[in-house]
Amino acid sequence: MRILFLGDVMGRAGRRGIAERLALLRGRLKADLAVVNAENASGGRGCTAGHAQLLLESGADCLTLGDHAFDQKDMLAFIDREPRIVRPLNFAKEAPGRGSTIVSDARGRKLLVTQALGQVFMSRPYDDPFSALDAVLRAHPPGGMVQASLVDFHAEATSEKMAAGHFCDGRASAVVGTHTHVPTADAQILPRGTGYQSDAGMCGDYDSVIGMEKTEPLRRFITGMTRDRFSPAEGEATLAGVLIVTDDRTGKAIGIDMVRDGGRLFPTHPDA
Amino acid sequence: MRILFLGDVMGRAGRRGIAERLALLRGRLKADLAVVNAENASGGRGCTAGHAQLLLESGADCLTLGDHAFDQKDMLAFIDREPRIVRPLNFAKEAPGRGSTIVSDARGRKLLVTQALGQVFMSRPYDDPFSALDAVLRAHPPGGMVQASLVDFHAEATSEKMAAGHFCDGRASAVVGTHTHVPTADAQILPRGTGYQSDAGMCGDYDSVIGMEKTEPLRRFITGMTRDRFSPAEGEATLAGVLIVTDDRTGKAIGIDMVRDGGRLFPTHPDA
Amino acid sequence: MRILFLGDVMGRAGRRGIAERLALLRGRLKADLAVVNAENASGGRGCTAGHAQLLLESGADCLTLGDHAFDQKDMLAFIDREPRIVRPLNFAKEAPGRGSTIVSDARGRKLLVTQALGQVFMSRPYDDPFSALDAVLRAHPPGGMVQASLVDFHAEATSEKMAAGHFCDGRASAVVGTHTHVPTADAQILPRGTGYQSDAGMCGDYDSVIGMEKTEPLRRFITGMTRDRFSPAEGEATLAGVLIVTDDRTGKAIGIDMVRDGGRLFPTHPDA
Amino acid sequence: MRILFLGDVMGRAGRRGIAERLALLRGRLKADLAVVNAENASGGRGCTAGHAQLLLESGADCLTLGDHAFDQKDMLAFIDREPRIVRPLNFAKEAPGRGSTIVSDARGRKLLVTQALGQVFMSRPYDDPFSALDAVLRAHPPGGMVQASLVDFHAEATSEKMAAGHFCDGRASAVVGTHTHVPTADAQILPRGTGYQSDAGMCGDYDSVIGMEKTEPLRRFITGMTRDRFSPAEGEATLAGVLIVTDDRTGKAIGIDMVRDGGRLFPTHPDA
Ligand SMILES: [Fe+2]
Ligand SMILES: [Fe+2]
Ligand SMILES: [Fe+2]
Ligand SMILES: [Fe+2]
Ligand SMILES: [Fe+2]
Ligand SMILES: [Fe+2]
Ligand SMILES: [Fe+2]
Ligand SMILES: [Fe+2]
Repeated sequence: MRILFLGDVMGRAGRRGIAERLALLRGRLKADLAVVNAENASGGRGCTAGHAQLLLESGADCLTLGDHAFDQKDMLAFIDREPRIVRPLNFAKEAPGRGSTIVSDARGRKLLVTQALGQVFMSRPYDDPFSALDAVLRAHPPGGMVQASLVDFHAEATSEKMAAGHFCDGRASAVVGTHTHVPTADAQILPRGTGYQSDAGMCGDYDSVIGMEKTEPLRRFITGMTRDRFSPAEGEATLAGVLIVTDDRTGKAIGIDMVRDGGRLFPTHPDA
Repeated sequence: MRILFLGDVMGRAGRRGIAERLALLRGRLKADLAVVNAENASGGRGCTAGHAQLLLESGADCLTLGDHAFDQKDMLAFIDREPRIVRPLNFAKEAPGRGSTIVSDARGRKLLVTQALGQVFMSRPYDDPFSALDAVLRAHPPGGMVQASLVDFHAEATSEKMAAGHFCDGRASAVVGTHTHVPTADAQILPRGTGYQSDAGMCGDYDSVIGMEKTEPLRRFITGMTRDRFSPAEGEATLAGVLIVTDDRTGKAIGIDMVRDGGRLFPTHPDA
Repeated sequence: MRILFLGDVMGRAGRRGIAERLALLRGRLKADLAVVNAENASGGRGCTAGHAQLLLESGADCLTLGDHAFDQKDMLAFIDREPRIVRPLNFAKEAPGRGSTIVSDARGRKLLVTQALGQVFMSRPYDDPFSALDAVLRAHPPGGMVQASLVDFHAEATSEKMAAGHFCDGRASAVVGTHTHVPTADAQILPRGTGYQSDAGMCGDYDSVIGMEKTEPLRRFITGMTRDRFSPAEGEATLAGVLIVTDDRTGKAIGIDMVRDGGRLFPTHPDA
Repeated sequence: MRILFLGDVMGRAGRRGIAERLALLRGRLKADLAVVNAENASGGRGCTAGHAQLLLESGADCLTLGDHAFDQKDMLAFIDREPRIVRPLNFAKEAPGRGSTIVSDARGRKLLVTQALGQVFMSRPYDDPFSALDAVLRAHPPGGMVQASLVDFHAEATSEKMAAGHFCDGRASAVVGTHTHVPTADAQILPRGTGYQSDAGMCGDYDSVIGMEKTEPLRRFITGMTRDRFSPAEGEATLAGVLIVTDDRTGKAIGIDMVRDGGRLFPTHPDA
């Protein structure tokens, strides 16, 4: 299966990039399924029900969230009605929604999508993501009921992300990080067959501070003083992520390649 | 000028990669100068005087350090005798050594090298890096006494790194991050002419947890219990960094491209 | 001199406690001067100009602030017009106002009041407080132009607070911590004559979570989910702080005793 | 029942204080049981089997630990042989030992002792302490099989500690914090009958930086440079903690009072 995974959609620029280019990109890459991280789709803070619908209608088969999952309060109710949205397994004891879901491609092949939050350098504490992932991956072993499985590991620290990759190695088709809003250049297939990249990057304007218009973040870093709210930068988004190619029989990764499309970053499109 | 900058050299694998391949890589890329981050060269913790000399003899014109600058105590005295080593400007009130230096290429062209530590998500507090960089860059404006200038911004958070890039935009030839040990795929020339990449990545074995042999880090993440010390992974190192091409007259960047050489990561060598 | 120092005034309950009882408390303790930390006087977040005036009119001779100094935006302008308000020395590069001030008692004796922010476990990074305090205390040595000096060390970690106490020992009349909103029971005179207590505590309702009505904080800790904003608890405030007695000639502390007045905590009033 | 709880025993000074004075203090306070936090008894880092035995022989009926529980490796095996030692419920997935225990006084009355680690500002991540405490307290309701129950909440942030107190209010006889090494002056009985104090303080030398000899901590704070290891201060220890008086029938607290004995802090002994 060919799975396109795109990182955190950032505000209007990110939404526009998805709306105008995701279908084209899927075609160009011959992607069977597309999974998109939507945790910053609405003004950089969470994702409204309306914006989630827009992303799903634009060609995403599944949306993941992150630490900003419920910044937009209407997601609290909407997520229970929309099985294609996944919030972190370890978001909170009493979070609505689900931490994993299964979506199918046009030929009926199944992809498990799950997400966990790291514990290192995050804005609030979360319970252990490793045992949470362990339970989900045990229930869906490679070569079983699903043809492939994708873990979105939403975390800051590269140490924790690489550890999560090795922890899932041989048990998931791919582990791809999100949250830092910068794509990493370390795509590889781990020793037991799991595709890995530390961060997918964001779908947003890279002339910015992690997608936010740069004036106010710079003011705060330089002067220590706050003046205005943060608002997303409005330049053309680079869609950033990975294309994972899996073996339907074993559930292992055959390939994992960086994808960069549009905006300021140098374009990279794996061969279709 | 063509400047090769390589990220954190990690233990024996990293040192061997530099010793065996840096000279070849310089040749292949027609690099005029090579700067190497050495903060993890000795067992992953700091850099001994002996290892610093090895790296300099292997083709590095200048070494930068980081938060681990003085983990090896003999560096405290050695750094004052070796002007080609730079520690962070804001390491401590009373640190030995220097936070910036000037090195010359074979044709006598001068490169300013400086380094600052970020304040976000670091293991201990450091003073404001922005005002520290400001003072150094003011003293060496582009188009002045030095033909180029390179800032190693040693930090964890992508937000602070992107802010540092914009803060130096038009004032330094390039700002390249280090410390996360994972290369980023966001190389770009910022609007006012500064080359930028969030992280150079490490020179180390990428079948690891940020360069450390993965067994013990995985144990700690999974079980919460410590058993052994960390030790660097010993597989072949990928040398990771960037090639920056600058205009000698303006000091601005003409190009910035990712470099990956050897080891597990897909090789990338910009055209010479 | 007899100096009363009270910790963080928390919302309406704290303001009411000051308005109704500070004058009485000053009389009972025969305090020559009263200094009050006002960083949470307005809804728990900063201090408006109006609330600052109320506290000053109620018997405070000087107000200190903290990390919440400018949460209420009118303080940005007001602080430059009101010399009796002190913000942290190391709040930011470009903060308005002053980090130290001198106030006089009815007999013309002078008290230096200054404040610094800790760096450990704070919500954002601040520059080194030790060198900032060093400069102020050097300019006002004990036994010099001021009869006494008071350092409000606004910090979370007990290690940093005790270190600040020893750093100032013999150089300030007293170092008293604020910020945790819980009074500590470690009042002592350090070996070289500086009165010390790790935290003054808050002037607020102690049937709460650090002064906030407890329902929402408990929800967040227990469920991980946010529902409402925080709002200060409204029960009767305990006024919490210390009474410092100094020798006018040497500037050293002769005594330092805990003060607790009203509300839920057991009352403690040092002998007058 | 009259329960004496003493905070973190710090190195040799703390051990000596316990060995020489705990029995006397128990007698003076007519304590039926004594519980002592031992996480720093051995050089400030953990507690050896030998030191644990010393504390138990000196009059402690039960020892609690903390984040330093297994810094001394022989505790890993010893804790499984000594039922009077409690490590935090949420220390790690695979920690040896137990997170709660029951000890009996001379008249056969039973006290449940349990401990949990906070998540805020700690050196590494721990799972949710609230649900862990919930399970233990549900199994031992007040007025049931045990006459009293004591929660040692080992945490840094006053917000999390006060939240833990309210969370257990009416369900435990007392919640007392440890870890900051400074006693707090906020002893109170919460609305539903639970005795509470944010921190017991340490049993150690208070002319120090949280019990460590002050030279090296001061050097690190002032200069940013490390030279030596930390070692505990050796002056006479203040034994610091609380005396909780409970109703054997209801399991609720009737009284909670601060205890300070010896050393630099002002002595406080509740009436027996
Ligand atoms: Fe995120
Ligand atoms: Fe994000
Ligand atoms: Fe490093
Ligand atoms: Fe580093
Ligand atoms: Fe504060
Ligand atoms: Fe406060
Ligand atoms: Fe401790
Ligand atoms: Fe502790």
